[in-house]
Amino acid sequence: MNQVWMQEALQMAVENIRSGQGGPFAALVVRDGVVLGRGVNRVTTAHDPTAHAEIVAIRAACLLLGDFQLTGCDLYTTCEPCPMCMGAIYWARPARVFYAATRQAAAQAGFDDAHIYHELTLPLAERRIPMLPLLPEAGGIPFEAWATAQQRVPY
Amino acid sequence: MNQVWMQEALQMAVENIRSGQGGPFAALVVRDGVVLGRGVNRVTTAHDPTAHAEIVAIRAACLLLGDFQLTGCDLYTTCEPCPMCMGAIYWARPARVFYAATRQAAAQAGFDDAHIYHELTLPLAERRIPMLPLLPEAGGIPFEAWATAQQRVPY
Repeated sequence: MNQVWMQEALQMAVENIRSGQGGPFAALVVRDGVVLGRGVNRVTTAHDPTAHAEIVAIRAACLLLGDFQLTGCDLYTTCEPCPMCMGAIYWARPARVFYAATRQAAAQAGFDDAHIYHELTLPLAERRIPMLPLLPEAGGIPFEAWATAQQRVPY
Repeated sequence: MNQVWMQEALQMAVENIRSGQGGPFAALVVRDGVVLGRGVNRVTTAHDPTAHAEIVAIRAACLLLGDFQLTGCDLYTTCEPCPMCMGAIYWARPARVFYAATRQAAAQAGFDDAHIYHELTLPLAERRIPMLPLLPEAGGIPFEAWATAQQRVPY
């Protein structure tokens, strides 16, 4: 844990606004005192709704490591992650996550992901974006192929 | 809604296993009968924990459209999305999501994201990956800069 990394992330977030690159968020992936990945929010300029700071930083660090896991790494993010980024964190499995602002502060600033957290607790049939089963009888075919595949890497 | 798109996605998922590219998942973004984006799971081969089929397809479609929104688009995915992909869906805002396999079927095949869904409902202090506040008093600085920024695009 090092406050210097969070200070750097906060500076990156402010600079990201000044340069017009995106929203007021930044993140760093750090291991053993070395920054492995940096990310700023680039949703609007990269035309990528997944380009949240945490996702960008996780992807950058994994690319550098040549791994899909962030074992032993810490993630420093200027704000409590949204559900998408929280999911990415659980898949990447860093050791710890440090955040400065809470999601409540983000909501007050106009970045309200509370509705997404809420939606994830609802049955699929009650979601605002309709989630509809289609060809459920065929849904198992890829899993059957996976079960008998010669080459497969668990993740 | 068109079963043909789901059949194509299922074929892509099976082919993804055979070619050794990644897990048994695929997704398509379709609008007005045209495929705008395709994605297969490439987590292990791309060294990218966020390279789930839905994320890859959403990013591809947004890149093609030059937009960070998938207004009027349908997402066809071979399996009920994980929390990360669900979050991405809410940020991209497609019209509808069609899925074949349920998350329970995915869990039986060894892809269990139930623990992530559960983790998201817990207080931050109780998560398996520690989520720790750091410099909370400085967390609002980027939001203050955002509030007075000359150029900003809401998303």
